[in-house]
Parts: sequence; C-alpha cells; structure tokens
Amino acid sequence: MTLLRRSLSMGEGPGSAGHVLSLLRAGPLTRSELAELTGQARSTVVQRLESLQAAGLVREASNLTTTGGRPSVAFEFDPTQHAILSADLGIRRATFAVTTLAGEVLSQLEEPIDIAAGPGPVLGLVAERLRWLGDVAGMDPIAVGIGLPGSVDRSGLPVAPPNMPGWDGTDVRAVLSEASGLPAFAANDANVLALGERAAAWPDVDNLMYVHVGTGIGAGIVADGRLLHGAEGAAGDLGHIFAPGARGRACRCGNVGCLDTYASGAGVLETLRLAGSPLTSLDEVLERVAAGDADVAGVLRDAGRVLGDVVASCVALLNPRVVVVGGRLGMAGEALVAGVREAVYARVLPLASRELRVTAARSGSSGGVIGAALLAADAALSGDLLESRLRAA
Amino acid sequence: MTLLRRSLSMGEGPGSAGHVLSLLRAGPLTRSELAELTGQARSTVVQRLESLQAAGLVREASNLTTTGGRPSVAFEFDPTQHAILSADLGIRRATFAVTTLAGEVLSQLEEPIDIAAGPGPVLGLVAERLRWLGDVAGMDPIAVGIGLPGSVDRSGLPVAPPNMPGWDGTDVRAVLSEASGLPAFAANDANVLALGERAAAWPDVDNLMYVHVGTGIGAGIVADGRLLHGAEGAAGDLGHIFAPGARGRACRCGNVGCLDTYASGAGVLETLRLAGSPLTSLDEVLERVAAGDADVAGVLRDAGRVLGDVVASCVALLNPRVVVVGGRLGMAGEALVAGVREAVYARVLPLASRELRVTAARSGSSGGVIGAALLAADAALSGDLLESRLRAA
Repeated sequence: MTLLRRSLSMGEGPGSAGHVLSLLRAGPLTRSELAELTGQARSTVVQRLESLQAAGLVREASNLTTTGGRPSVAFEFDPTQHAILSADLGIRRATFAVTTLAGEVLSQLEEPIDIAAGPGPVLGLVAERLRWLGDVAGMDPIAVGIGLPGSVDRSGLPVAPPNMPGWDGTDVRAVLSEASGLPAFAANDANVLALGERAAAWPDVDNLMYVHVGTGIGAGIVADGRLLHGAEGAAGDLGHIFAPGARGRACRCGNVGCLDTYASGAGVLETLRLAGSPLTSLDEVLERVAAGDADVAGVLRDAGRVLGDVVASCVALLNPRVVVVGGRLGMAGEALVAGVREAVYARVLPLASRELRVTAARSGSSGGVIGAALLAADAALSGDLLESRLRAA
Repeated sequence: MTLLRRSLSMGEGPGSAGHVLSLLRAGPLTRSELAELTGQARSTVVQRLESLQAAGLVREASNLTTTGGRPSVAFEFDPTQHAILSADLGIRRATFAVTTLAGEVLSQLEEPIDIAAGPGPVLGLVAERLRWLGDVAGMDPIAVGIGLPGSVDRSGLPVAPPNMPGWDGTDVRAVLSEASGLPAFAANDANVLALGERAAAWPDVDNLMYVHVGTGIGAGIVADGRLLHGAEGAAGDLGHIFAPGARGRACRCGNVGCLDTYASGAGVLETLRLAGSPLTSLDEVLERVAAGDADVAGVLRDAGRVLGDVVASCVALLNPRVVVVGGRLGMAGEALVAGVREAVYARVLPLASRELRVTAARSGSSGGVIGAALLAADAALSGDLLESRLRAA
C-alpha cells in the first residue's frame, strides 16, 4: 500500500496529467481516445490537456484523425518548447549537449577532460559548459542528465568506481542541481549509451545490449524494453568478467584474466607494447587503423574475438536481438566488431542467434548525450516534477 | 495506439475489474483506497468488487482498517475458491500439483517420465494426472500451467529443444487446453522454478537468478522484479556457455567446452566414468553423497567451481541479490553449491558481491509446480480470461 500511495502522490495515478502525457509521448491521441485509455470523464481529460498545453508540453497534432465520422482533433507531445542539458563523461573526454525533450541534439560540444581531477573541477566544468549551451540555445531547460564512466547506484551515486578516483559517493545529482537550479539525473555511461543508441538507431528493438569499448569496457542492457539495473545498479559491469582469451594478464582489480586487460583500449595498448609497437595512445591506434595498418587492425580483431567470447555468454544469458559495439575502439572501423561477430556466431545456439545482429554503434559521438537527455526527460516529465511544472505554468 | 487499445479491450484498463483485482493481489484495500488508486468513482469500485466477490475471487478481509475515523471494511484477494492445475516436466521425471490461486500446493504427485517419448504420450499422461488431481481436490480449476525442460518461445511453443526430441513446435498450450477444457500456459522449467523459488523463499527480492542443475543446466532470471524473456524467449540458456574449466569436452551441440559437458548431471556422470567410477545414474550419485562419499562429493564440488566461473560472469552482467542453485544436483547437500560460491566470490567485484547470497534452492520439489501455477494464475486473473470468468459468474 505504501508503494501504491507514493506512486499516486507523485502524480502518476490513472488519469493524472503524468498519465495523459505518458500516453501522448507514445503517439498522438484524440480527447475521446484519452478518455477511454485513462478511464476518466472527457471533462477531466480536457482539463489535463489544457494544463499540459499551457506548460508547452502538448500541442494539437497537424493531422486530423477520422474514425468514420467527422474528423476530430488529435493531440501530441511537443518536445520542442523546453530543453534538456546533457553531459556524457568519459575518462579522458566529455560531450555536452542541449537537446529537445525527445533527445534531439540542438547543439553539442566535445572536449578533453581528466576524470581523475575529481568531482570538484570536473563538475564545475560540466556546469559551466551546460550553462553556456543553455544560453546559446535560448530555450528553457528543465533538467540535467549526465552519464558517468563507472558504477552508479540506483540513487545516482558513483560507487567505488575504479576509473573515477576521488568520486566514491559524490552526490553528482545534488552538485549539478545546485549549480544549475534544475533537477539532475545520473547514470552509468554504458546505460545512457544503450538508451541513446536504441532511440537513435533501434527504436523498435526491445532487447539490446550495448557494449562500450573505450579505455575500459562496460555494457548497458535493454531487456524486454527496459534498462536493466540490477540489485546495486551494477548490471552490465563486463570489464572484470574472466575472458578465456585474455592470456591471464593481471588486472588492477586484483584478479587475472579480466576482459579489460585484453580487449579494452588499455588492453590493446598493452598488447601493442608487448609486441614492441611504439604506439602509446588510442589516438595513435585509431590513426594507424584509419591509415590501413594491417598489424594494428589484426590486434583489434583479436581483441574483438576475446570480447566476443564474453559477449557470446551474455547473448546466451540475455537473448538480445541486437548487440551494438560502441566506444572509441568499437567505432574504429570494422576490425573489432568483426572479431566480436566471429566469436559470437561461433558459440551461440541457433534459437538465440538466428535473428541476432552484431553491429557497430550508429549514434556516433551523440549516443551518450541523447541517452542522458532521455533519462532526464523521462524523470522530469513524470511524477512530482511534472506536477510542480504544471502548477507553475 | 494499437497496443494500448488491445490492452484496454483485454479488460486491463484503469478501473477495470482486472485492475482492481491486481491491486488487491498486492494486499487488502478499502473501497475508498481503491477509488483513489484507480481514479474511479466509489460506485464503480463497488460494482467491480461485487462482481469479483460473486466470482469467488475477492472476500472481505478479516481485519478492519482504521484511519483515525470509524473502521472501514477492507477487501482482499481470495486465492482459495479456485484451483490451478500445474505440471513441471523434467527430462526423466515430472511433478504434478493442484494449487490455490496463490500457488499454495494442495496436493502433489511425482513420477518418472521419458520426455523423449514425445508430446503425444507425455502430454496424454499430464492431462490424465491433472484431471485426477483436480477431481481429488474437489475445487474448481480455472487454468493449467506447465514448465518444460527446454527453450519455449514467447507464445509458449518449444523451439528446437535439444533435450526434447520430437517436441519442436508442438503447441503444448493447445494440446493441454483441449484435453482439460481450460486455458493453458507454458514456460521453460528454469523460468517457472525461478518464479516458484522467489515466491516460496525470496518474496522481497527483485533480482534473483535461479540456476537449475539437473541432467542439463538452465537458468531463470528475475531482473528488476520481472521474469527476463529475451528476444526469442531464450534468456537464461546457460548450458552451452563456454566454461573455462570444462576441459574442452565435446558437446552434443557441436561445440566444445560447454558448461553442460562438465557441470550438469550428465557432465558429473562423465567425470565419474573417466575416473573409473562404476556409478551410472544421478540416483546413485546422490545416494553416495548422502552416504558421505568424499570422492563423489569432491567431483560435485569441482563441478560447482566450473559452474561458479560461469555464474560469476552472469553476476557481473545481471547484478542479482540472490543466486539460487537448484535441480537434483543443486539440492544434493552443500558440495555443489559450495563450489559455486567459492568461484563466484573469487571473481565478482565488491559492488556486485557485497550483498550477494549464493544458496541452495529451498522450495524443494514443489518449486516448479508453484512457479507454473503462478504463471497460469497471473494470466488467468487478468485480461479477457478474467472478464469472461466474471461474466459467467
């Protein structure tokens, strides 16, 4: 009963403005359809629509629907009157964007950062850049979304993230909310990338696994239409799974043979170093691959195979329709993803593989900010936040 | 829109009898609370309650609730007036039961079967035994639920199940429905076991992985409160994941090193055979373990370690709170589960392991029939099936 009451008091009950808006976000509907779907009187629906229109969240749809009789006006979600400020932090670079409420990027900015500088300087920079982007866009921002390169618990706190020294337990949401005056939401970067890639490239796919291969490796999982969190919010932590092909390399986590030690950006650089290569940065690796260096491409393909063995286990467990390989290495030509594909199709049983696609990410550098924006928009357009916005309008 | 319309026409819309019943299945509520939660007029709620009471699905709760003023009558779900007929098929044995609508077993029957005899004889036996159990219980059965030892797609059809020769594409639901005159529902056995174990032992846990170790190995996953299906309904197919410790044994799937070849009942028998042991059946293995045979227990513990390496990967991916090891080998004393625990805690990162429990199944031989009954009850107590039941009452 407590849970039910809370959900009601948060303005998500049947026939609330939040309920009407969530129905319209799935597609245009007429007043009668809304009355039927919410189980409310038409007058109640009209009231809800008026307050959503006054708040700039709903508009009349351009196409009239006819159902045999005279045409009736349909209403639709209007994502263009307000903006979301969105950031996607990697270990060494960040993307900042201002988007519509539907996650469409209006303006985007990328620059190097050093996540190890700690939350003070990094979040100061984030707040500064987002303020600037919001000013440029000239739209009213209603929330902030951010993706972080490490484990984030269900309340949005980073938890002992090995890639983010000094960030353990930092209340990222509170810091950004204070700096921006807006509600803020945080999630693991692989999770926001999974949401962004799905929205941008696979809107009809309900089972998608996004594997992020940057300096480290992580995954975001959409299972049966929803982002998978797990008990501690740690679902998708692939980097320290034992990889049979990782040659037993020692990992900074204290174990040996972790996937990260071989198939991540850091792992690829280590493989190159052991082979006597002079390359010491991912930028150099990507340049050589782009220039057609077959040896470096071979190292990436091998890393892809080792990753693919682990992904094959994940496919057996999750039965996704699409595996997307992204991140700086994932998007570096076809070498890595071809290795993943090879290993996956070599292992997976017919039922799980017959409709499976293994493909490189398509949302490019915008995937993370799109996903973080959608995360923030979902939260800001439901419950108490929506109610207080409507009261203010 | 199509989806929304369908859900409405299936009697699941806000304020429908299905909605009221789903709220009451979570706990007792008064008329006013139901009116608030459904957004309906009190008179509508009263109507719904009357029709649910007439159908024997709702009763007045024995405790009155007081909220400061005079006490008001609360209503609760009544699971005792109707029954579910439930079957859990393994490869070599089956459990049949009649349960309440809450999955409480009223009467249960176990016997050997041979799944390879094919759907005709096996489903004939199932229908016969369920009819008998229904007669004995003397309650009105409203649905049939069945768990099958192989992959089952989203519509309940077995799909090329290697353990079930001759069953590919058999419409199990249609056959049982015709034989019983009741709606029937089917799922993979590991999935129904996960539901049963959660209901019986871990009702408050939203992230649970159930690993079934019988002749073969499979898993059922409850993630963020819901059973995970995957794109083809094949989520949890653990048996053919590559297991580093499986010594590269050849598997009947055509690959080498599959988990099944080493850690399943069949794998354990093969290990014993290679070591010159005279044991040739799981019954003998279990007898020897029960008699304190340290060599056989050592083989089980080793199988548990090999399984645990794979489970560790699953834990990293899914971040469950509880891993339950069940099936005939899983419940054979602590040897196997101790091996699993050892390997899991050796690999998993702190965030995913700090609250993790790895434990033997507690629901015993009833887990499968409880889960299959809950699956069938959920389906029979919502949508069109509920509506037609209420019209008939």
